[in-house]
Amino acid sequence: VQANVVVLPKADAFDFLLFCIRNPKPCPIVEVLEPGSVTPFRSAPEADMRTDVPLYRVYREGELIAEVPDIRDYWREDFVTFLIGCSYTTDGVLGAAGIRLRNLENDNSGPMFKTSVACEPAGRFSGPLVVSMRPMTPRDAIQATSITARLPRFHGAPVHIGDPAAIGISNIDEPDYGEPLPLLDGELPVFWGCGVTPQAVALESRTELMITHAPGHMFVTSIREAAEEV
Amino acid sequence: VQANVVVLPKADAFDFLLFCIRNPKPCPIVEVLEPGSVTPFRSAPEADMRTDVPLYRVYREGELIAEVPDIRDYWREDFVTFLIGCSYTTDGVLGAAGIRLRNLENDNSGPMFKTSVACEPAGRFSGPLVVSMRPMTPRDAIQATSITARLPRFHGAPVHIGDPAAIGISNIDEPDYGEPLPLLDGELPVFWGCGVTPQAVALESRTELMITHAPGHMFVTSIREAAEEV
Repeated sequence: VQANVVVLPKADAFDFLLFCIRNPKPCPIVEVLEPGSVTPFRSAPEADMRTDVPLYRVYREGELIAEVPDIRDYWREDFVTFLIGCSYTTDGVLGAAGIRLRNLENDNSGPMFKTSVACEPAGRFSGPLVVSMRPMTPRDAIQATSITARLPRFHGAPVHIGDPAAIGISNIDEPDYGEPLPLLDGELPVFWGCGVTPQAVALESRTELMITHAPGHMFVTSIREAAEEV
Repeated sequence: VQANVVVLPKADAFDFLLFCIRNPKPCPIVEVLEPGSVTPFRSAPEADMRTDVPLYRVYREGELIAEVPDIRDYWREDFVTFLIGCSYTTDGVLGAAGIRLRNLENDNSGPMFKTSVACEPAGRFSGPLVVSMRPMTPRDAIQATSITARLPRFHGAPVHIGDPAAIGISNIDEPDYGEPLPLLDGELPVFWGCGVTPQAVALESRTELMITHAPGHMFVTSIREAAEEV
C-alpha cells in the first residue's frame, strides 16, 4: 500500500483531519501520527517519516521553497504527519481482478482533473474535488465499481461515470495533473476521488508550512494490498 | 439515527478525533462540528447542540459538576461537539431484519462491559474498550454479523462472539453499565464496540471540561436509519 503524505503544524491539524473525514473519497486516511512522531506504528513501524519518502516538497504559505530527499533540517516537534490512501493501490486491486488498466499499459501516470464539485469545507480548508480518470468498458466499469465500493480506505466507489461536463471538466484531453489518456470507442470515463485533493486544498489555504511527497514519490507502507480487501 | 454526544475544548479536540478514527468500532463518527458551532449541518441542520439534547452531564477534570437540560450557561466559543454512533440504531436495523432482540423484549437497556482489550491510544486519551452484549442464537449471530459489517457508522461487525473471559469479562451477569440479560439455552453472547467507550476514556483522562448526554438521553439526528444501510 502506497500513501500520499501531508505534514502540517499541530495548529492546522484538527481542521485538516476534519477535512479528511468529511471528504473520505478523496482523502481516505491510512494513518495519522501523533504530533512530533516520525514513526507510523500502524502502517510502517520501522520507518522514519523524515527520511523514508523518496522525495519531499516543502511549502511556506503556499509557495514551494524546497524539493529535498530528507526533511530532518525542517522537522519540528509540532509537526503532524497524515498518510492518505493513493490510487496506485486501487490499480493493483483492479488489475488483480482482471480489469484492463490502460494507464498502466501505456506507462501513463493517468489523467487527473479539478472538478466543479466542492469538497465539504472544514475550518480554513476548502476547495474543489480532484478526480482521477480511468477509461473502461461498461462491463469493467461495473466490476470496478463493485470492487472499489468495498475499499473505503482507497477512495471507495467512483464519484462519477460518463459525461465529464457534468462535473465541470470541459476537455477530457487536457488534465490538470498527470497525462492525457484518450478514450477508445466503447469506453466510458470513470472518475474516482483523488489523493491530490487534500494537498491542493492545503496549498490553496496557504498554511504557514506544509511538507508533502513530490509527485510520483509516494511513501511505501508495510501493509499488503490483500490485507485491505476484506 | 441517535447519537452519543461529547463536547470538549478545542485544545483536546485533535487528540480526541484521532482517538475516534483509530478506534472506529467503539467510536464511529456521525459528525464533528467546527469549534464554537452549535449546528450539526450534516445530520440535524435545525438543531442547537446547547439545548436539543434531552439531558446533559457536565464534568470538570473528570468530576461530575452538573446534570442540566440546557448548556447555554456553560457554552464556550472553543467547544467542539462530537456526535458518535449509538447502538440503538443498530437495534433498529437488526430488528427490521427479523433478528430477535431480547433486550427490547424485556424493556432492558442492555448490558455493557469494560473489557481487557485496550483501545489504541491517541495523545492524552487511552483506556479499555467498552462493549455492548446481545444474546443470540448462532443463526441470528451470523446474520447480525453480516448486516452490521456493512454499517461501519454504527459500530460495524462484532468485536467478539462467545467466551466472555477471552475479552476479560469475568461475570456475564454483572455488567459495568446497563442491566444484566441472562443467556438462554442455545444462545451465544455477541459483543459490539460501544459508544460509551469514548466517554469513559475522556472521563478517565480528566480533561479540563467535558459535556456529554446523560445516559439514555441521546441526541436524535434527522438522518433516517434506512439511508445509512447502503
